[in-house]
Amino acid sequence: MRTRSVGVFKIATTGPGDVSGLMARIGSGAIDPREILAILGKTEGNGGVNDFTREYAVSALCAALAPHLDLPPREVEQRIAFVMSGGTEGVLSPHITVFTRRAIDSPPVRPSGKRLSIGMAQTRDFLPEELGRSAQITETATAVKAAMADAGISDPADIHFVQIKCPLLTSDRVEAAAARGNKTATTSAYASMAYSRGASALGVAVALGEIAADLHDEDVLRRYDLFSSVASTSSGIELMHNVVIVLGNSAASASEFAIGHAVMNDAIDSAAVVAALQSIGLRIAPQATEGRELINVFAKAEASPDGTVRGCRHTMLEDTDISSTRHARAAVGGLIAGLAGTGAVYVSGGAEHQGPAGGGPVAVIARLSD
Amino acid sequence: MRTRSVGVFKIATTGPGDVSGLMARIGSGAIDPREILAILGKTEGNGGVNDFTREYAVSALCAALAPHLDLPPREVEQRIAFVMSGGTEGVLSPHITVFTRRAIDSPPVRPSGKRLSIGMAQTRDFLPEELGRSAQITETATAVKAAMADAGISDPADIHFVQIKCPLLTSDRVEAAAARGNKTATTSAYASMAYSRGASALGVAVALGEIAADLHDEDVLRRYDLFSSVASTSSGIELMHNVVIVLGNSAASASEFAIGHAVMNDAIDSAAVVAALQSIGLRIAPQATEGRELINVFAKAEASPDGTVRGCRHTMLEDTDISSTRHARAAVGGLIAGLAGTGAVYVSGGAEHQGPAGGGPVAVIARLSD
Amino acid sequence: MRTRSVGVFKIATTGPGDVSGLMARIGSGAIDPREILAILGKTEGNGGVNDFTREYAVSALCAALAPHLDLPPREVEQRIAFVMSGGTEGVLSPHITVFTRRAIDSPPVRPSGKRLSIGMAQTRDFLPEELGRSAQITETATAVKAAMADAGISDPADIHFVQIKCPLLTSDRVEAAAARGNKTATTSAYASMAYSRGASALGVAVALGEIAADLHDEDVLRRYDLFSSVASTSSGIELMHNVVIVLGNSAASASEFAIGHAVMNDAIDSAAVVAALQSIGLRIAPQATEGRELINVFAKAEASPDGTVRGCRHTMLEDTDISSTRHARAAVGGLIAGLAGTGAVYVSGGAEHQGPAGGGPVAVIARLSD
Amino acid sequence: MRTRSVGVFKIATTGPGDVSGLMARIGSGAIDPREILAILGKTEGNGGVNDFTREYAVSALCAALAPHLDLPPREVEQRIAFVMSGGTEGVLSPHITVFTRRAIDSPPVRPSGKRLSIGMAQTRDFLPEELGRSAQITETATAVKAAMADAGISDPADIHFVQIKCPLLTSDRVEAAAARGNKTATTSAYASMAYSRGASALGVAVALGEIAADLHDEDVLRRYDLFSSVASTSSGIELMHNVVIVLGNSAASASEFAIGHAVMNDAIDSAAVVAALQSIGLRIAPQATEGRELINVFAKAEASPDGTVRGCRHTMLEDTDISSTRHARAAVGGLIAGLAGTGAVYVSGGAEHQGPAGGGPVAVIARLSD
Repeated sequence: MRTRSVGVFKIATTGPGDVSGLMARIGSGAIDPREILAILGKTEGNGGVNDFTREYAVSALCAALAPHLDLPPREVEQRIAFVMSGGTEGVLSPHITVFTRRAIDSPPVRPSGKRLSIGMAQTRDFLPEELGRSAQITETATAVKAAMADAGISDPADIHFVQIKCPLLTSDRVEAAAARGNKTATTSAYASMAYSRGASALGVAVALGEIAADLHDEDVLRRYDLFSSVASTSSGIELMHNVVIVLGNSAASASEFAIGHAVMNDAIDSAAVVAALQSIGLRIAPQATEGRELINVFAKAEASPDGTVRGCRHTMLEDTDISSTRHARAAVGGLIAGLAGTGAVYVSGGAEHQGPAGGGPVAVIARLSD
Repeated sequence: MRTRSVGVFKIATTGPGDVSGLMARIGSGAIDPREILAILGKTEGNGGVNDFTREYAVSALCAALAPHLDLPPREVEQRIAFVMSGGTEGVLSPHITVFTRRAIDSPPVRPSGKRLSIGMAQTRDFLPEELGRSAQITETATAVKAAMADAGISDPADIHFVQIKCPLLTSDRVEAAAARGNKTATTSAYASMAYSRGASALGVAVALGEIAADLHDEDVLRRYDLFSSVASTSSGIELMHNVVIVLGNSAASASEFAIGHAVMNDAIDSAAVVAALQSIGLRIAPQATEGRELINVFAKAEASPDGTVRGCRHTMLEDTDISSTRHARAAVGGLIAGLAGTGAVYVSGGAEHQGPAGGGPVAVIARLSD
Repeated sequence: MRTRSVGVFKIATTGPGDVSGLMARIGSGAIDPREILAILGKTEGNGGVNDFTREYAVSALCAALAPHLDLPPREVEQRIAFVMSGGTEGVLSPHITVFTRRAIDSPPVRPSGKRLSIGMAQTRDFLPEELGRSAQITETATAVKAAMADAGISDPADIHFVQIKCPLLTSDRVEAAAARGNKTATTSAYASMAYSRGASALGVAVALGEIAADLHDEDVLRRYDLFSSVASTSSGIELMHNVVIVLGNSAASASEFAIGHAVMNDAIDSAAVVAALQSIGLRIAPQATEGRELINVFAKAEASPDGTVRGCRHTMLEDTDISSTRHARAAVGGLIAGLAGTGAVYVSGGAEHQGPAGGGPVAVIARLSD
Repeated sequence: MRTRSVGVFKIATTGPGDVSGLMARIGSGAIDPREILAILGKTEGNGGVNDFTREYAVSALCAALAPHLDLPPREVEQRIAFVMSGGTEGVLSPHITVFTRRAIDSPPVRPSGKRLSIGMAQTRDFLPEELGRSAQITETATAVKAAMADAGISDPADIHFVQIKCPLLTSDRVEAAAARGNKTATTSAYASMAYSRGASALGVAVALGEIAADLHDEDVLRRYDLFSSVASTSSGIELMHNVVIVLGNSAASASEFAIGHAVMNDAIDSAAVVAALQSIGLRIAPQATEGRELINVFAKAEASPDGTVRGCRHTMLEDTDISSTRHARAAVGGLIAGLAGTGAVYVSGGAEHQGPAGGGPVAVIARLSD
C-alpha cells in the first residue's frame, strides 16, 4: 500500500538571501511548510572555505520559515535539512530544490512502479581530529542506514542519491585539536573540505555494501578505487556533524516523481549523463519525451587527481588563481546543462570517493505524468 | 585541378614554453617547418590582460623554429601566424594546432569534394584610439577578403572559421592616445579586449556579407544582433595589428582534411555542437565513424550579456573573483569536450559579435580517409 | 553648551553573520541599542559585485537588533545606517565600528576643545541611469549638507570623514534602464561601482566647497583633479539611494572621542598616515601616547589610474585574476596596519575622486582621556 | 686587502619578457655581462604553481645574455643564478636586481668597514620524495657553507640574506615518486611549495648555527619555533635542485654597497622595517640621509599560520579565491613600500621557517658614498 507522497519543487533564486520564490509557493498553498523535509540549494559563492552564501541562504530560509513552523529561526535547522552547495560557475544557475513528504491514506491516482522516496538522519558532532578519518566513515555509515529506514527503502539498489552535508576544519578548530594534543588530518582549511567529503562518501559506500567496511584512516584521499556510486557530499563551515539525505524509489511511495542515476567515469562522460537521463525516460535536450518532465539533475564534479582527463592533461590542479573545485563544477556543469537543456542543475564540487577518481555520480529526478 | 595541400597537426604541450612535440615532428619529417603557415594554440594562462603564457609560447616557438627557417627569432612571427588563446579552464587541455600548406603537382590520391584550405592576411598597425571602432572593422574586412583570396576561396559559404588575433589597450596605450588628445573606446585594459574582439568580428561579418557595411562606432558591443557566424577573435597584448586566418573548403585543395561548422545559439547549445560534428560526418563521442577522425573543434564562448542562459540566471558577469571569459570557456569547453570526447579542443573566450549574444561559432576539422 | 555625546565602539567579528560582540555589549549595558546611529563594518567578502557578506552582515545585525528596538528586522535599516565595506585582504581584520549618539544635559567631565560629532542624511532612490552622473552628484551634495546640520557642524573645516553608501548597477538594472530607452553610464556591474563611488565623492566635494558645483556627467572618472579630501564612498548591491554619514568635531559635543585626518597622495604615502595619527595626538605603533588611545583608522585605497606609484609601474589594473580594489586594499591596509599597530582598521577600496588619483583620505578616531 | 668588488643594479621591467633595461646597461658598459653572478627578480605572475612568468623571464634573460657570454641560451643558467619571485601584488613593481662580482687589484677608493659580498652554490638534484624533508635540509646546509666560502665570509653574523631557489612538486613528479613506491610529503602542488621553502630555510638555519642540526621530516611546517632570520626561499617549477646565494658584508670587499637586516616578528612589524633601514644608515621615506642611497629591500612575507596578526583575526588562510601568499605579499609589500618610498622592492611570499611564524627577514642594500 502506498503510504507516503514526496514532492519536489525547483525554485530559482535571485541571490543567496532570496526566499521570495519559496514564500510565494507557501502563500499559494503549493507547498505546505510543515511538510518540508529538506532543501538542497546551489548558491553563488566560491564553494570554498570562505563561502558565506551557504550560511546566509540557510539563515534567510530559517528566518522566513520560522513563523510558518511556529519555531524560532534557530530551531528550523533542527527540523529541516538544508544542504547548500556553493559555486554556480559557468552556466550553473542559483536555485533551491525543496523536498516535501507527507503521509497519505491512499493516492488519488495509483502510480505504477516504484516512486521517489526520501529519508534523513544525522550523526553526532565530530571532533576536528575525527574529520576525514575512520570515525567519520563509521558514523556516516550508521546514519545512512537510519536514513534508508526513514525512507522506507531496504534494497540498496533502490538508492540513487545520498546527499551529505559535512564539516570542515578552520584555523580555530585545528588549534582546538592541537590544544588537546591531537593532530588533525590536515591543517589547511581548504584541504580539510576534501578529507571530510571523502570520508563521508566512504561511509555511504560502506552502508550500501559497495565496498568492505574495513577501512583505515590512510585510505581516505589515497585509495581512489574505493568509492560510492551514489554519494554526494558537501562540506561547509556551519556545522560539526554529518546530515544524511537518501533519495531512492520505493513501492510505498505515491509520489509523482521518480529518480534514476548513472556514474560518470570522468568529467567528460557525456554517455553517463545520457544514460542517467534515459534511466528515467528522458532524452538529450531539446528532445521532449511525453509523460516525462525533467525536474533536476544532481551530480558531483572533480578534477581528476592524476592530472589528466581521457589522456589529455588538464590544468585544474596547478591553478593557483582558481580552485580546482570551481574549475570542475564549471566544466561538468556545462556538459550537464547542455544535455539537460538548463543551467539550473545541482552540480557540486569535490567528488572524492564519490564515483571513480575524476568522475562522479549523476542522478536525475523526473515528474511522471503517466 | 588540385594545386595545394593543407596539413593539420594537433600537438599536446606540457607548458607554454614546451616546443618538444613540434620539434619531434620536425625531426621525424612529419612536418616540414618551411610549410608552416599558422599555429593556433591554447595556453594555460588566465586569458586576460596579464596572460603572459601567450607571448611566452610564441617566443618559445619562434626561438625553436628560427634555425629551421634560417631566420632570426624576431622574424619568424612575420612569416608564421601565431594565435595563442589563453585559458584552459576546466577540462580544456593545452595544445597547439599546426597548419601547413604546400603547392603540389598532383595529389597521390584524388579526393572527392571540397577539402580544407587556409589563407592569411594582416591589417596595418592600429592606433589605440582606433581599437573597437569603425577603423578596425573596415581594415579587418579588407584583410578577410585578402585572406580568402590567399586561400583560393571565393564563395563565402565555403568559409567555416575565420580566426583573428587583435590588440588590446594597456595603460601606456591609453596614455599615448590621451597625449595626442584622443579618447580610447575604454580606459580599462580588460574591457578593451572585448571592444577589439567585437570590432574584428564585425569586420568578418562585413567581408562575408553577413551584415551590411554601414556600421558605426557605437554599434560595437551594443548591436548584438549584428554578428558573424564564423568569426573567432582573440585579443593579446603582443601586437597592434589584426592577423586574419581563414579556414574553409576548396575544390583546389588536395588536403586529407575538411572543415564544417554550426552556430551555438547559447552556451548550452548541445544541438549545435552535434550539428557541427555531423556536418563533417562525425557523431557524439564515443561513437566512431568509419573514415572520419576528429582532429579538433574550434569554438568561441561568452557569458550571455543579458545575464541569463535559456531563461535561467547565470552569475558570470557579476563575479568579481573570476572573469566571465574564464567562466564561459570552462562551461562551453566542458560541453564540447564531452561531446567530442577530448579536452584538447580550441575553445576561446569573448565571443562579442561572434555568433549571437551568448552563443558563438563552432567549427570542426576532421581527417577523411575515404 | 555641550548637548550631545557620541560613542564609538570597535568590535571584532568572527564572520559576516557574527553579532555576538555587539549583543554582549548591549547585554552588559555598554551600548544602548536605541542610541545606535550608524555601524560601519569591514566584512570578509571580495568587496566586488557579488560580495554578499555585506548584505548578510546587515541582515544579521537587523535581525539581532530588531527585538531591542521593537521593530521588525526590515525597519531597522531605516533607523540605523549600515555601511559594510567588503574586503579584508592581507592583514585587514573583520570588525564593526558602532557609533552612538545621545542628547545630554551636561557632561560628567567638561572636555576641552571640539569633540567627535556625527550626522546623517539620505538621498532619494536613484534610477539606474542616474548613477555615476550629475543627478547623483547633486543629490549627494544636498544630503551632505543635511547631514552636517544633523551633526551640528557648520564649518566644513571641522568635517574629517564623510562616509557614503551608494548603489551599483546589475544586469537587471541595466536592462530596466534600457527598457525605458535610457543608457546607463556603463553596462558592467563592476565598472558601475566606480562610477557610483566617484559621483558620490564629487557630491561631497561640492557640498564642502572643495570644488565648484558646475560638474558634468563626463567629469566622473575623467577629471581626477577634482576630488574631496574627506569623502569615503562604498557601493553595494543592496540599496538604490545614497546614505551619508558625516564625522567631524564640534564644540557642542561632549564625546570622549575626537577625529582628525590627512590625505594620502599615493598608495605608499606613509607620511600622510603619520600626519593623520599626529593630528589627533598619536604616534607610529608601538609608541604609546599618554591620554590618547587609537580607536580606528578610516581610509580609502585605490590603484593609481596611471599605472604607476611614485614612478614605479604597478600591475593592479592589468590583473585579470584579482580586481584592483582588492590589490589596493591589501597594500594600503598593510601600510596603515603597520603604522597603527593593528589590522582592525577600516580600509575601503575604490577611491575615485576621494583624494587625489591613486591616493585617498585617511581619518583617525582616538579616545582622549585628558 | 680588498680583492673583490660587488655591484648591484636595480632595473625596472615592463613585462616578464622585458630585457631591454639590462641590455641597455650592457650596451653602455655599465654592466659587464661576464661579471654577472646572480639576478633576483620580481615578476608579475601569481607566484603560485602555474606562474610561468618566472620561467619566461629566465628564458628571455638567457636568450638575451647568451651571445654576450658566447654560450647557448641553455647554458647561461648554469653560469648565472636566476631567482625569479612571482607576484607583484598591490604596489609591488616588477624589476630585476643584477649582482655582479669581479676580482680587483686594489680599489680606487679604500672604503671603510665591511662591504657587500656575494657567494653562490648549488645542491644536487632532489628526488620528488626528498622535497620538504631532511634530505633537502641537509643538502641545503652544505650548500650554504659552500656559498659562504665562495663569498669570502666566515662569520655567520656577517650574513644578512640567504636567497634560495628550490623545486616544487607537480602531478607528474608525485606520480614518478609513486611509481617508485615512494610517497611525497604532499600530493598538492601548491602545498609542496611550502614544504620545499620550509626545508630549505631550515637548511640555512642549520648552516648558520641558528638551530641545532638534528631535525626530522616531521619538523618541517610543524616546528615553527625553528627558523632562520636571514633565509629567503622561493620555489619554482623550473628546477629540481636548490640554488643558494648568500649576501653579507666582508672586509675583503671593495664594493660601494653594504647590506643589513632585521627580523619582522609579524606582518605589520613596521619597527623591524625601520630597524633594517637604520642598520644601514637609512631612514623612513621621504627622509633622505646624506651619503646613503637605498638600492633595494629584500623581505619575506607570509600569512600567520595561527590565523591572527597581533591578536586580530586575518582571513588570508580561509580565502579560496586568493592564495594566502598573494595576500601576504600585498600587505607586507604595502608596508615596506610605504617605509622605503618605492614599490620596486623584493617581497617574496611563503616565509615558512624564514623568521618567526607570520613574520620574516627583511634586508636592505644601500650604496654608500662616504
